[in-house]
Formats: sequence, C-alpha cells, structure tokens
Amino acid sequence: MEKDKILIINGVNLNLLGTRETSIYGNQTFEQYFEELKNIFPQFELVYFQSNVEGFLVDKLHEVGFSYRGIVLNAGAYTHTSIALADAISAINTPVVEVHISNIYKRETFRHKSFLTAYCEGIVSGFGLKSYAMALHYFL
Amino acid sequence: MEKDKILIINGVNLNLLGTRETSIYGNQTFEQYFEELKNIFPQFELVYFQSNVEGFLVDKLHEVGFSYRGIVLNAGAYTHTSIALADAISAINTPVVEVHISNIYKRETFRHKSFLTAYCEGIVSGFGLKSYAMALHYFL
Amino acid sequence: MEKDKILIINGVNLNLLGTRETSIYGNQTFEQYFEELKNIFPQFELVYFQSNVEGFLVDKLHEVGFSYRGIVLNAGAYTHTSIALADAISAINTPVVEVHISNIYKRETFRHKSFLTAYCEGIVSGFGLKSYAMALHYFL
Amino acid sequence: MEKDKILIINGVNLNLLGTRETSIYGNQTFEQYFEELKNIFPQFELVYFQSNVEGFLVDKLHEVGFSYRGIVLNAGAYTHTSIALADAISAINTPVVEVHISNIYKRETFRHKSFLTAYCEGIVSGFGLKSYAMALHYFL
Amino acid sequence: MEKDKILIINGVNLNLLGTRETSIYGNQTFEQYFEELKNIFPQFELVYFQSNVEGFLVDKLHEVGFSYRGIVLNAGAYTHTSIALADAISAINTPVVEVHISNIYKRETFRHKSFLTAYCEGIVSGFGLKSYAMALHYFL
Amino acid sequence: MEKDKILIINGVNLNLLGTRETSIYGNQTFEQYFEELKNIFPQFELVYFQSNVEGFLVDKLHEVGFSYRGIVLNAGAYTHTSIALADAISAINTPVVEVHISNIYKRETFRHKSFLTAYCEGIVSGFGLKSYAMALHYFL
Amino acid sequence: MEKDKILIINGVNLNLLGTRETSIYGNQTFEQYFEELKNIFPQFELVYFQSNVEGFLVDKLHEVGFSYRGIVLNAGAYTHTSIALADAISAINTPVVEVHISNIYKRETFRHKSFLTAYCEGIVSGFGLKSYAMALHYFL
Amino acid sequence: MEKDKILIINGVNLNLLGTRETSIYGNQTFEQYFEELKNIFPQFELVYFQSNVEGFLVDKLHEVGFSYRGIVLNAGAYTHTSIALADAISAINTPVVEVHISNIYKRETFRHKSFLTAYCEGIVSGFGLKSYAMALHYFL
Amino acid sequence: MEKDKILIINGVNLNLLGTRETSIYGNQTFEQYFEELKNIFPQFELVYFQSNVEGFLVDKLHEVGFSYRGIVLNAGAYTHTSIALADAISAINTPVVEVHISNIYKRETFRHKSFLTAYCEGIVSGFGLKSYAMALHYFL
Amino acid sequence: MEKDKILIINGVNLNLLGTRETSIYGNQTFEQYFEELKNIFPQFELVYFQSNVEGFLVDKLHEVGFSYRGIVLNAGAYTHTSIALADAISAINTPVVEVHISNIYKRETFRHKSFLTAYCEGIVSGFGLKSYAMALHYFL
Amino acid sequence: MEKDKILIINGVNLNLLGTRETSIYGNQTFEQYFEELKNIFPQFELVYFQSNVEGFLVDKLHEVGFSYRGIVLNAGAYTHTSIALADAISAINTPVVEVHISNIYKRETFRHKSFLTAYCEGIVSGFGLKSYAMALHYFL
Amino acid sequence: MEKDKILIINGVNLNLLGTRETSIYGNQTFEQYFEELKNIFPQFELVYFQSNVEGFLVDKLHEVGFSYRGIVLNAGAYTHTSIALADAISAINTPVVEVHISNIYKRETFRHKSFLTAYCEGIVSGFGLKSYAMALHYFL
Repeated sequence: MEKDKILIINGVNLNLLGTRETSIYGNQTFEQYFEELKNIFPQFELVYFQSNVEGFLVDKLHEVGFSYRGIVLNAGAYTHTSIALADAISAINTPVVEVHISNIYKRETFRHKSFLTAYCEGIVSGFGLKSYAMALHYFL
Repeated sequence: MEKDKILIINGVNLNLLGTRETSIYGNQTFEQYFEELKNIFPQFELVYFQSNVEGFLVDKLHEVGFSYRGIVLNAGAYTHTSIALADAISAINTPVVEVHISNIYKRETFRHKSFLTAYCEGIVSGFGLKSYAMALHYFL
Repeated sequence: MEKDKILIINGVNLNLLGTRETSIYGNQTFEQYFEELKNIFPQFELVYFQSNVEGFLVDKLHEVGFSYRGIVLNAGAYTHTSIALADAISAINTPVVEVHISNIYKRETFRHKSFLTAYCEGIVSGFGLKSYAMALHYFL
Repeated sequence: MEKDKILIINGVNLNLLGTRETSIYGNQTFEQYFEELKNIFPQFELVYFQSNVEGFLVDKLHEVGFSYRGIVLNAGAYTHTSIALADAISAINTPVVEVHISNIYKRETFRHKSFLTAYCEGIVSGFGLKSYAMALHYFL
Repeated sequence: MEKDKILIINGVNLNLLGTRETSIYGNQTFEQYFEELKNIFPQFELVYFQSNVEGFLVDKLHEVGFSYRGIVLNAGAYTHTSIALADAISAINTPVVEVHISNIYKRETFRHKSFLTAYCEGIVSGFGLKSYAMALHYFL
Repeated sequence: MEKDKILIINGVNLNLLGTRETSIYGNQTFEQYFEELKNIFPQFELVYFQSNVEGFLVDKLHEVGFSYRGIVLNAGAYTHTSIALADAISAINTPVVEVHISNIYKRETFRHKSFLTAYCEGIVSGFGLKSYAMALHYFL
Repeated sequence: MEKDKILIINGVNLNLLGTRETSIYGNQTFEQYFEELKNIFPQFELVYFQSNVEGFLVDKLHEVGFSYRGIVLNAGAYTHTSIALADAISAINTPVVEVHISNIYKRETFRHKSFLTAYCEGIVSGFGLKSYAMALHYFL
Repeated sequence: MEKDKILIINGVNLNLLGTRETSIYGNQTFEQYFEELKNIFPQFELVYFQSNVEGFLVDKLHEVGFSYRGIVLNAGAYTHTSIALADAISAINTPVVEVHISNIYKRETFRHKSFLTAYCEGIVSGFGLKSYAMALHYFL
Repeated sequence: MEKDKILIINGVNLNLLGTRETSIYGNQTFEQYFEELKNIFPQFELVYFQSNVEGFLVDKLHEVGFSYRGIVLNAGAYTHTSIALADAISAINTPVVEVHISNIYKRETFRHKSFLTAYCEGIVSGFGLKSYAMALHYFL
Repeated sequence: MEKDKILIINGVNLNLLGTRETSIYGNQTFEQYFEELKNIFPQFELVYFQSNVEGFLVDKLHEVGFSYRGIVLNAGAYTHTSIALADAISAINTPVVEVHISNIYKRETFRHKSFLTAYCEGIVSGFGLKSYAMALHYFL
Repeated sequence: MEKDKILIINGVNLNLLGTRETSIYGNQTFEQYFEELKNIFPQFELVYFQSNVEGFLVDKLHEVGFSYRGIVLNAGAYTHTSIALADAISAINTPVVEVHISNIYKRETFRHKSFLTAYCEGIVSGFGLKSYAMALHYFL
Repeated sequence: MEKDKILIINGVNLNLLGTRETSIYGNQTFEQYFEELKNIFPQFELVYFQSNVEGFLVDKLHEVGFSYRGIVLNAGAYTHTSIALADAISAINTPVVEVHISNIYKRETFRHKSFLTAYCEGIVSGFGLKSYAMALHYFL
C-alpha cells in the first residue's frame, strides 16, 4: 500500500543550514536532519525540496499541490514579502503548514508580518529544527 | 512576407489556468486557448511565454522588446509589487498592454494598485481569457 | 437569422469628438468611426447612442439591458461622479464593458477613481478610439 | 366633489421594480401595486410619475407643487447627491414625504446621507412597498 | 446686417422665477424680463434657454458655443456640483459669464464654491434679475 | 428734476490706473474712463472718489450712505484686510456693489477671500474696467 | 484754578451713533450724550474727538498724551487690528482706559482679541453708553 | 544743474522722536537730524515726509515714485501689517531702502517679520538715527 | 600558482548596458568592459555573472561566498527591495562591495535607501562603469 | 593725531570674491574694493581681515574688540550656524555691524535665520559691495 | 611632461591613523600609506594635506580647486555638519570624490547624512585605507 | 621622580576670563587662577592650553591624549555643536573631565545639550572657577 506523501519545502538561504553558524545549529545539514525525520514518521513518504528562487517555490507548490497529503513550508525571507507564494498556497488543494526555525515574533518588527499565514492551516515557529517535526504531527 | 511578432506573457500562478477552478474557467488550458488566439489573429505570429519567476519575465521582455511588434503582459501578483518589471517595460521599445483576467477593481484594495499601468499603453481588465484577444486587437 | 445586438453608449461631452482638438484625435467624428466598427464586426448589429443627460444614459441602459448581448460604455465625466449609473449597471442583465479613450491612470488623480468599474465586466482604457473595438471583441 | 390629488413620484432605476429581483419583491410591478394603493385610498386621486432624469423629477415637482395635496417621493440614488431636488422641494408649496423601500440606515454609509430629508415633512424608510402606503396615511 | 447672438441660459429650478415668492421678486416671469432685456440690448439678438436637466444645459452650450458672441449662464444648484458643465465651458470657444441672482457669498458655505468661475470670463452675483443685464453689458 | 447720485469709490493704489502697466490696461486713466461712464449713464449723477486712506473711504461711505442711490466700491488691497470697511458698509443704507477689475477667483488663494462681499448687494469681478459699467447697471 | 483735562476719543464708525439703529440706542447722538457726561463730571474739562482714520487717532493720542489727565478710548474695529494704536498708547504718558459699548466677549471670536488692552490701565466693556461714564470714574 | 531727489519717509509714531525717551535718543527731533543729513549729503536734494496715516504714506510713494532717485522708508508698525504698502513699493519705479532705528531682530518675534523687505533693495536696521544716513549712502 | 577569484555580479536590467541609452553610457556592453577589467587586474581571476532572477543572485552568492576572494555586487532595482539578498550577504564569508553606476544620492529619495549597504564592506557610487574598477581595487 | 581703527572682517568663502562669478560681482577683488573704502573714509584707519577659520574670526574679534572703534562683519555661511561667533560678539566692547552682500530675506528660508543679528548693533543687507560702505557710515 | 596633480585631503581626527587602534588598522600611518599610493599611481603627482581645522580645509580646497585634476576628500566628522565645506566644493572647478574609511551606513543614523555627497562626483565608503586608492582610480 | 601631567584646556571665548565682566569674576585672569591651582595640587604637573579654534583643541587632545594622566576640558560654546571634539575624546586614552563655570542646566535649553559628556569620565558644572579644582580632585 502506498504511503501518503508530504513535501517539506525550504525557501531562500535555508540551503546554508549546517554549513554556517555551526556553533548554533551544530554541523548537521538539513539533509541529515531529513533522514531523522523519515525515521520519526515512517507512516509518510517524505519528500524534500529547497530553492532560493521565489518562482521555483511556486512551481513546486503547483506540482505537488493537487496530489500530496500535506506540505510543510519554511519560505525564509520571502515569508515577509511574497504575495505570489500566498496566492500559490491559496490555489492548490493540499493543506500547508507554515514553519520557522526561530521565533519570528521575537525578532525585528518587519519579521512579524507574514503574507502566508492566512492561507495556511497554521504556523509552528521558534522550536529550532524540531519545528518541522511538530508540523508533521499535524498530518498524523 | 514575415508576419509581425507579438509576445503573450503570463506571470506567476497563471500556469494553473484550466487545471483549477474549472467550473469557472472551463477545463481549457491557456495553451489550448492560445491555439484559438492564433486562429483569430492569423496576421500575427503569436509567441507564448509563462513563468513563475519574476526575473525570467524580465529576461523575456528584454529578449523581444527591441524587435517584436507588441507585448501582452499579465504579470499576476507581481503587478502589485515589482519595480523591476516596471523598469523593464520602461527600458524596452516594444509597446506593452497590461492584461488581467479578473476585474482587479472588484477585488481587495491592495490589488487596485498596479506598478505597471503608468508604463504601459493601456489596460484591459476583467474579461476572462478574452482579455488577451481584446488586447491583441490594439496591435491590428 | 438575427444578429446579436450591442449598444455603444457615449456620455457627456463625447459628442464633440472629431470637432475639437482635431490635431489630437483627427477630424474623424465618432459617427464615422462607428461605420468602421460596423465593418469590423459584421457579426453584430451595432447600435449607437450618445447623450449628455445622465438620466437618458440610465434609460438607455434599462431599455437594452435585458435583451442586448452587450453594452460598451464610456460615461465621460459622469464616470467619476454618478452613483445612479453604477446602480443601473448593477440592475440590468446585459454585461457592460467600461471604456476610456485615454489611459486614465496616467492623468489627474481624481480621474483614477471610477464609480462604474466595480459593476462592469471589465475595463479597457488608453488605446484611443481603438478601445471601443477592443471592448467589442469581448462579445465575440 | 373633486378629490385631493397626491403625486407618487419614483426616481432613478425605480422603474425596474417587479422586473428584476423578483424573488425578493415578487413579480408585481409598481404599476400593479399602484392599483392596490388606489383601492386602499379611495379618498385621494392618486397620480404616478417615474423618471430616471434628475431634471424631469424637478420638472414634475414644479408642475404639481402648487396645487396638489401632497407628494410621496422616492428619489432613488439621487437622494444622496442632488442639491437640485432639495431646492425644488424647498421651492414648492405642497408638502413632500420622503420614502425608501429599504432601510437606508442599514446600508452603506454613503446611503445614510440624504440631501432631501431636511426639506420634507418626514421620512418613511425600510418597509418594502408598504412604505408608500404608510406615507400616504400622513395625508389622511 | 446680422446682429451678434448671445445666449442666456438658466439652470435648475430657475423656471419658477415670477411664480413663487412673488412678494420678493414681483410677479414678473423670466420670460417677461427677457422681453425687457431685448429692449435694453437691441444691438444683440438674445436667445433664451432654460432647463432643469444638467445634460440639456451641456447640449445647449455645445450647440451655440462655436458661433455665438457670448453666453450668460446661471446654472443654479449645478454650479456647486457639476464637473460636466465645467468641462463643457472649457471645450467651447464662446466666452461665458457666470451669473447669480442672489449673493452666493451671503449664503451657506457650500454655496461659496463654484466649479464654473475659473473657466468663465468673470462673475456677476447678487443683483436679482438685474444681474443678467449687467452681465450682458460685458459684451457691448 | 434732480438725478439720482451714485458714488464710484476706488481704494488703495487704484489711482495708478493708466499710469503703470499700460500695455495691459491701456493708457487711459480712470478719470478718462469716468467721463465715458458719465456718457453711458446720463440718467445718473456720477460722483467719483479715490483715496489710499482706509479711514477716508469709511468717511465717504458715511457721507453719502444715507442719501445716495448707490455705491460702486473697489477697495483694492483693503478688500482682503479691512474689517472697518465691512462695518461701514453694514452701517449705511445705500446699497453697495463690490467691483474688481480682475477675476479674483483666478488669482492667489488669499485674494479669493473678501471681507466685504457678505455686506454688499453683490459682486462683479473679472471684466476689466467694464466691471464698473456693469455694476452701475444695477442701479438703473 | 484749571480743571484736569480728559479726552474721550471714538474710533471708526462711531460717529454714526444716534443716527442709525435708533431703536436700540435711542436717537441721542454721542454729542448729546457728551453734554450729559459734562454734567456728571463737572470736576473735569472733558474734550471729545472722533475719527475714522487710524492715523488721526494716533495723532490725537500724541497731541494730548503728555499733558492731559486721562484718555477714554473706544477704537471701534481698529481695536482688533491696530498695532500702531497700541504703540501710540505705549509711547505717551497719559493713562488710557479702553471702552466698548457692547460686550465684545459675547460677540464673534475675532472681536475677543484686543491689541490695546495690554497697554491701557484697564477695560470697560458691555454697558452701553454708560461704559464711558464708568471709565471716567477711574480718574476721580 | 539739478540734484537728484531722495525722499525720506517716516511712518506711524515716528513723529515723536526727540520728544519722548530723550534719555535714549537725546532731545534732537528728526527735523533737526534732517538738517544734519542735508549737510552730510549735499549732492542730493533731500525731502522729508512723515505721517501716521497708512494711506498718506502710500500717496507719497506714488507721488515721488516715478521721478525721484531713491526712497528711504521707515514704516514703523505698518512694516509688520501693511499689504497696501508692499503693493505700493512694488508698483513704483524708484528703488526703496527699508530702514529701522532699532534692531528689530532683538525685539519681539512678531517684529522679525516685515512685509516690505522682499520688495525693497535691502534693509538697514538697528543703528539709531544713523540708519538713515547709512541708507542714503546706497544712492551715492 | 592560482589567482584569487573575484565575482562581479550584476542584477536586474543591467544586462541592457551598452544596448540602450548609448548616448549616455557609450555603445560598450558590460561584456566588453569586463575584458578591460581583466586587463587592468591581471592579478585576479575575474568571473562575471548577471541575472535578472533574484534567487539566482542569491544562489551565486552562496556558490562562491565561501571560497572566493571577493564579490562586487550591483543589484539594480533589487537594491531597494530585497531582504533576501541582504540575508545572503550576511550569511556568506566572502566580503561584498556594493556598486552603483550613478550617484544614488543625487536621485529620487526612494533610491537613497539600500537594504544591502549595512551588510557589505562598503559602497562605491556615482563613477559610471569606473565604479567597478574602483571596487575591485579594494581586493588588491 | 591717531585715527579711529575699524576692522572689516570677512568669513568663510568670501576670499573668492572677484575670482568667481565675475559676471555678477565684476572682476574686482575685495582687496581692490578695500582701497576704495579707504579713500571714501579717510577719517578712519581701516583694517581688513579674512579667514575661513571660525576660530580665527573669534580670535580677531577678541584682539580688536576692546580697543577698536568698530567692526564690520560678514561671516558668510557661519552666520547661520556659529554660536561661538555670537558669543564672541557678545563678549567684546567694540560695536559690531552685520553685513551681507545679497538681501538674505530674498533667498532660501534657512538663510533668513542669523545667529549673529541679536548681538550686533544692526544689520545692513542687500546692497552689494556697497553694504560695507553703508555699514562704515555708522561709525562716523 | 608635467603630471596631473591630485590632492588627498583628510579632515578632523584623521591624523591619528596608525597611532591608535593599531590592532585594526595596523601601525601604518597615513603618511606611510601615502607613499604606497604614490607607487600605485605613478601617473599622478599626489599631494597630501590634513587638518583638524574646518577653515583650513576650505582654504586648501580654494587653493587647488581651480588648477588640480582632482580632489579626494575625507572630511571626518565635518561631513555631517559643515555647510561651509559644501559651499566650497560647489564654488571650485576641480571634481571632488568623497571618501570614508568606515562604512558610514553601518554606524549611527546621524552619520548616514552627508552634506557633501550631493556636490561630489560620487562616494567611496567602507574599505579602510584602500578607499583612497579606489577613489584615485576614478581619475585614471 | 616625575609627576603625573594633567592638561587643563579651555575652549572658545574663555581666554577673556578676568578681562571682561570683572564685577562677576573679579579681575583675576585664568592664568592667575592657574597659579593657585598649581599650589593646591603640588602632586601634579599642571599644563594649561587655550584656543578659540575648534581644530586646535582637537590637535591638543591628540598631542597629550596618549601620555598624560588626565585632561580637564571646558570647550565653551563648542560643547553644544562639536562632534569633532567628541570624536577626539573618544579616540585618545587619557580620561577627560568636562567642566563648566556656570550651571549650564540653568541656562537656555540649547545649552543643556552637550555632545561631549557621553565620552568623558564625568561633568562638573556650576561652581565658578572652583569647578576646575573639583575636577582635578578626580585624578587624586
């Protein structure tokens, strides 16, 4: 029997996780962490995608947004500026959970505003990499 | 004798036409509609381009903007945020007609503002897919 | 077989087209241009009406607004002040296309506001007299 | 013996009653309702007038305003914009009762303002077609 | 030899002159006064027009505005609200003198504003019916 | 039989008419123009007074303001600042007509305000020296 | 033995007292009232002066302001606008009492402001003609 | 050979010089100082004029303003309030130098504003009576 | 021995240099100028990258930002809007020099604001194409 | 017998007089003009000092400020910013006259403000180089 | 053949370079660095000047500003306060390049404002001592 | 054994102490007071410096600021305007104590602001000349 598919999608600059600021995040890359996630959620087929291009993130949402079970999205800095991503979330059928590694409400004021939250199922923010695991729980 | 070339260029999320909300737009994709347009305007060589990437839209405007007869542009959500597209329209020689499928003046207030209109010949908004045909008429 | 009827309706001061400012618009009257339109759209029975009286414009919208195939409306200065015309458009069944000869978004700020657009199918603005032909295209 | 004459006067777009939105108002036209009114008020000679032209409403008020017993006026959208009608009411001798089918104070803010009320005997608003009968009671 | 033609044009509610408030204005109608004007100014061919319809006033301005020697305009309440009339004055060639029977600067603040004065030669306000004769003097 | 007397009164700096800016006003002095006025209005005994002194203007208004038939007043710059002149006009019986050579509504905003108009019969503004003749017409 | 001299000085428009609005003030002129004042205050040599010219009021203050016992000043409308009078009061030695017939604080806001009060001994306002007698009491 | 004429003109309250506050200015009147000025500037024919009347100052400016070589003007308190004087300076041909005995920038804020400076050649302020001699130097 | 690598990176619309506005910039393309730069700086291995895609600019910064000696960045219109680019500069190790062809402090106010400067080593603005050579000097 | 000494002191950028903008000021340097001044005022020993250094201007004011007869100061741009110069003028005994070549009240608003005037005897502004001669006159 | 001369001019506190904070800047003085610059730019005759005195900087700009090829100016703290320096740059002919050692846009907000940039060719800011070499490049 | 050196440095206008306003400060010059200070603090080698030139004060701070034990600084009026002095204090190693003879917080508001205090050890203000002795105590 086929498992439900869930996309984890990381936006701009998030490909650098594990490479920089290793004293904070450890030297684990997101790819390594992704292996852990697969162990924690064996009931899902997890798929990973990252891009720094706003438009490619839109492309990916379109591609999986009519067949997958769920999407976990960390858009990085585009969270605060992209109406295009908001529209893409609104256009697809698959439910999206917004994720942030840091607590964006503890940071600069301009990072308090998210164009995406209103179109997502909900938001998980501030738990480090664990935020992704928590978001995936939603789809259990 | 060579025909005048006209570019029809669609921006972000517009690749979903015909796939979603088919009860509204029918199950005709823009590609199918494009075939109709070619039949309606046999005097032009129509070229079609779509991208979800703001920069690829700029690329395309540059590519054709010094040789084509005209451009019909629906920038989608970038209409309301992109200074880069406005600058590109201003930099090229080919006249641009702004097009919207929906009547943007019936929607949220923030969609009433277009960075592009002041640099275009004019605007055609609200006629569904027919907006494109109407815009093409300008180049007859 | 009877053709679909379409009304072209011009509002206040637009009867002076072709008479004044001929260096801009040429010395073609709207009546002459109307003959051209009939040649371009032989599939429609085009009807023309012009009045400087706000109420007669309302009357005409009522008269044809339950039987005609479409209405192309350039209300002139009433565009910016008439709630009555907006209500009339809202009350009838025939779809109305708003038309402007100039690109009103390139002009004085107070001309950016239209009471009518929200009740029309859409708007065609900025293409000179061709705006009418483009608007008619919608009804093909 | 001659009966007192009372004019019922309907303004812009009100000629469409009974034709549109029949699920709300039934398919009774105002002319049909007017027959009922004549039965209810046999002591008056009721006269009916409707026009979409602001100036013709003024004309009619002038015509009857020095001889009739009363006037029941529903000016439609002109209620909110016409200083000319206010001046006409002020100029004549016959008392005028302002009438609205819907409760204008439950609608958009701009419909709360009436230029006419200050010059009328009073206002009846919100009782559907019955508003006219209630207004006529004033003249008993 | 043909005399110069001058149009005297009265707007909304001004047809009631001589009929109401006769204790103030006497029982002379404007038509009677117009006969006097013809006697006072035998060197002109005076033409009179009155309408309560804003659009008919525009029509008349268009009709005479390219051949007559002058226009004397009292727009009544439309003075304070009509952009259409202002545009019409601006579009024609014949010079227009704005006239008011009462001194509008003694009345409500909203009557101090005229949309028309900036497009007219000048203004004559406050002299009763004589304001018209005074205005005609300008064309001697 | 004695003729009715009418005072024409010019305020501050108006004695320079005909001396300066002759390319605009011609080299006719007001005194010369006054002779013309006497020919045009033989039925009146016209009296002329000019002063640059605010108080002498008040004196003159008092002197003739209980016996003369009328006063034609151009107060020059005092129009915009003198409460004393406004009070004098209010105190006398003779009707006063306010006159301006230029159309003050086409000039600087601070010249739109007149302390005098509300106390005068009316205003004639914008017709050059003819403004005086037009004002005198009021007293015929 | 010579009596102390006191000047009563009336400003702009106050020469009209007793001539106009006799239903309010009676038909007594200020000159008649001045005779009464002389009877009430036989211990003073009262002197009276009136002018409508701001500068002549200044002249008079200079003339008596180094020898008289006191000055009673009603400057009329100049009260609210004349810095020159304020300076004159400040320059002379004779004490000045400001007087007003009406209660200026009950009138229009712009009449609440007096440039003079700060340089006078005091102010008496609102007691009709009796205000002058009350002011003279100060010099007893 | 005739000498160039220069007018020295003093405004309101300046006739008191030498009479009051003699401990400050000495007991020299302006007339005595004027004799000194004539000795200092034998190359000019100096003319002196003083008035407390704003309008007489305007009169004098007109009288000499088309033939004299220069004008030295101390308008006193009218400096801060008179648009009429500013207009008069603007209307004449003779250049005007603004003069003040005291340093007006050491005094109350409202005396820092001069309506006249912008229309004068320049300003000399603060040197006591010598300000006049300094101003005359300009015309050498 | 290997030379240090330096990336020159041009953002949106800057590929049009040399093609348009040749009267200002000459008809030299940036590619031609790049050849000159290589001659001027033989000690470096210069690499050129241009893209109109915001995300590709981010990609490129990531790609070279941990190994190259330096980056010279002209982001074009993204300078004023892209938080993503600012974050990318902040995330990498290679020092970045911001460059502008024009002096942005002499232009529209909204071009004075740069999201990037605070994260760069410094800024070179206003020297035409020479700005790039000047920036490269930093890495000598 | 020794003559009274007077210092003429020019501040920042004023050493360029006669060198630049010679079409306005002529090609006469201040040094040449200074020779003329010595001829005009043989009764004084004139001393000239110029510096672009704010502190040297203060030094010089101290040096001569207890023995010289007078100081003529044109501080240039320091006029609008230097509290130190204002304090120095306040500290010394020698009277200072502020001088400006142009009429600073005809220029930008920020040049209307002088920190120095309140501490000087007075100001001479607007007479070109003659302003200096006029200022020297004060010390006669 | 004579080489073009270029002045490098350092303002207030910049003489301390190399003496303090040597861990940051090394123990190289500007004088030592200047020798390097001469080696790097053998085609120019470089001249160096430093002063802590605002006026001496003005002096130097005047001295070389009509003959040198270029000026490289780091005004230090005077950048943010000196109108006198801005005026001096504006008065001379030689082009000036503004230089800062630190990136002033990373520092306190009040250091973001420069009075000088608008009068200079351009700005080089943030590259340590190398900023000077980069600026000199402009004159090649 | 060598004593610690301490610099007492006085800024603009402070060289005048003892020369002016001797009724307040006595006729003791600062040099005389300085002798007293040397007696009170035999343990220090006191050095005195005064200049009116902002830049020379900076020079002196640089000269002693890396070897002396302490600096007592009264900058006079530059306290309120000089960022350059603030930077100099920040750049040197020797601790600086800010001193004022008067209590600057009792004076004009603009003297409450000191650019220097934030970079000094502390401030002593208001104790007359004793302020200097009190400041020296800090270095005991």
